[in-house]
Amino acid sequence: MKRLAILGSTGSIGQSTLSIVEQFPDRYVVAALAAGSNVDVALEQATRWRPRIVSLATEKLAGQLAVRLAQAGVTGVEVVHGTAGTVACATHPEADFVVSAIVGVAGLEATHAAILAGKPVGLPNKECMVAAGEILTAAARQRNVPILPIDSEHNAVHQCLRVGSHSEVKTIWLTASGGPFRQLPLDQFASITPEQALKHPTWVMGRRITVDSATMLNKGLEVIEACRLFDLAPSQVKVTVHPQSTVHSLVEFVDGSILAQISVTDMRLPILYALAYPERPVSSLTFDLAALRHLDFEPPDFERFPCLRLAFEAAEKGGAHCIALNAADEVAVEAFLERRIPFPGIPRTIERVLAATPEAHPTTIAEVLARDREARQTAHALLK
Amino acid sequence: MKRLAILGSTGSIGQSTLSIVEQFPDRYVVAALAAGSNVDVALEQATRWRPRIVSLATEKLAGQLAVRLAQAGVTGVEVVHGTAGTVACATHPEADFVVSAIVGVAGLEATHAAILAGKPVGLPNKECMVAAGEILTAAARQRNVPILPIDSEHNAVHQCLRVGSHSEVKTIWLTASGGPFRQLPLDQFASITPEQALKHPTWVMGRRITVDSATMLNKGLEVIEACRLFDLAPSQVKVTVHPQSTVHSLVEFVDGSILAQISVTDMRLPILYALAYPERPVSSLTFDLAALRHLDFEPPDFERFPCLRLAFEAAEKGGAHCIALNAADEVAVEAFLERRIPFPGIPRTIERVLAATPEAHPTTIAEVLARDREARQTAHALLK
Repeated sequence: MKRLAILGSTGSIGQSTLSIVEQFPDRYVVAALAAGSNVDVALEQATRWRPRIVSLATEKLAGQLAVRLAQAGVTGVEVVHGTAGTVACATHPEADFVVSAIVGVAGLEATHAAILAGKPVGLPNKECMVAAGEILTAAARQRNVPILPIDSEHNAVHQCLRVGSHSEVKTIWLTASGGPFRQLPLDQFASITPEQALKHPTWVMGRRITVDSATMLNKGLEVIEACRLFDLAPSQVKVTVHPQSTVHSLVEFVDGSILAQISVTDMRLPILYALAYPERPVSSLTFDLAALRHLDFEPPDFERFPCLRLAFEAAEKGGAHCIALNAADEVAVEAFLERRIPFPGIPRTIERVLAATPEAHPTTIAEVLARDREARQTAHALLK
Repeated sequence: MKRLAILGSTGSIGQSTLSIVEQFPDRYVVAALAAGSNVDVALEQATRWRPRIVSLATEKLAGQLAVRLAQAGVTGVEVVHGTAGTVACATHPEADFVVSAIVGVAGLEATHAAILAGKPVGLPNKECMVAAGEILTAAARQRNVPILPIDSEHNAVHQCLRVGSHSEVKTIWLTASGGPFRQLPLDQFASITPEQALKHPTWVMGRRITVDSATMLNKGLEVIEACRLFDLAPSQVKVTVHPQSTVHSLVEFVDGSILAQISVTDMRLPILYALAYPERPVSSLTFDLAALRHLDFEPPDFERFPCLRLAFEAAEKGGAHCIALNAADEVAVEAFLERRIPFPGIPRTIERVLAATPEAHPTTIAEVLARDREARQTAHALLK
């Protein structure tokens, strides 16, 4: 029986993780839940799953939850709050495995704390790996703790990597849907609206990640994530556009063999893989291979998607440039969604922030967060 | 340094194996060569590779080779002949690994002997597994000897299987090119000529296997081979037609993940994989993934390719029916190539031989060979 700490339990990945717990009650129980600001859902989850500890964003929200749990007659649930509360969930002595699904760099400290506490981590959050990949993987190596990727591409790579050794890996090929603007004439990019950018052809996701898919910055973040997770040079990571999102990624070995992973586009599959690794439980998440007809691939268009080029450049520089790439993009996407800048303004903003970023390689999480704040300030200043 | 016994050294797989030895002189040396009747090539190979032992088909041919080796000043090469000679090669004390590439059931005794002698075997020969799979795999289990498939599909499956355990395998999907008649109108099948059947769209192979690809009996044999090699029920093996022969096969796991292997259509790759397993040496057999555009798949047409249906039926019955399937096909293909029967006469002959075959499960190689002879006699009698 694996006892889970789920950080970001009220989000999409958090809820999918709980649906896996529901499906496999003989395999998983919930030890800790770090929710955000949604007291209603936190109450429902705590009542249903009876964790040892629940964390909310603020002291006030935590107070509300404690009162409502008492009213509901739910006892034995410690209620905490803030970053310290999230860290308490991530390092709780009764948690065997941490699903670190808080969006953005907000989950960074807790993820780091979980690894330092020797907990295996399932990581759907790519921003943590982009901003602090060197620190997290160094801690994981030192503690001999596995980090299991829940991002569908990296999860696919993790599976394919099992058929060879690290030194036998030649290239990792991340597949990309290409987003909604793969075939849009370039001269129409300036007039792309937020509504158009928020329509992803194959995955239903959050707002920022959906826009990031449209600019392909998302794939760029994944390139950096792959370098960190799998200890590869940026030159060993390539992108192939695959509109059907059926092949989730491929690994090419030095002997010439290429392994690919195929599955439904459902995040529960990588979550289950991470939770159960190295086992594979029987699931109903079946891909109908008999109905498969065509798979299409094409090279990515770096002119159309300058964000992808910027990400490769940041990956080469590492450290502060990866932090700035992610931070500047978040600010720029927000500005685009608020109609303050056009779609091509996203890569332009990132490029200018990167140009203003001095090369640096933070060695602590505090330093990473400081660089992240600086980059955001630079981006905000540029957008004024 | 791995010392190889190559059975069938003058054939296509044998020569490809020697080209691998040539490419990796620090990894492989040749300990034994079992050639057929081609004394010239055997002389050349023995002179070049200096094995401890060489076997030819007959005493007369062996005598010729011994004289010519002496004339060439090549010493220290023992020359033997016949089945006993092949077995001596397969079990030679200085051989660490046996590539068993003699075509058809002719290689059966030597393959069995190699396994009993505790030698790991690389097996491109599907007929051995079809006719005597239960016996060979039982011996391999008992001796704890790996049988590494060199057939490209089974080699792909072997690679994909490494990402899960045996009990986690749901279905194996063997890809099939569909051969030259995948889209030929059914009413033209009766007039297919040997010349048309000998044109394979993606692989260059021997005559029988090329016709077997056109009838898809070859894929049927591979279904049986897969059941034996990987200890699966026929219901766990499926076929998907994939005209590009880029994906060499796929394995579907119980959690919903599917792993696929992609590579160039070059037999040297599975040979290298088998020789080097579990390592992967750097090779030049690169697949250009950046140039990949489309992969197509479609369900096999059992009406068009009755041989495939017959193979699944034989796989269910096992034993004598698998032996008869292979034997009857060999006789029928020969008759087709000699223009004695039309193309649809191949499945008709097999079906009639299978109907005349009593259910039996041979437990010795001698019994397998006896059943094989019986089936051939039945087929010949039917074709008179």
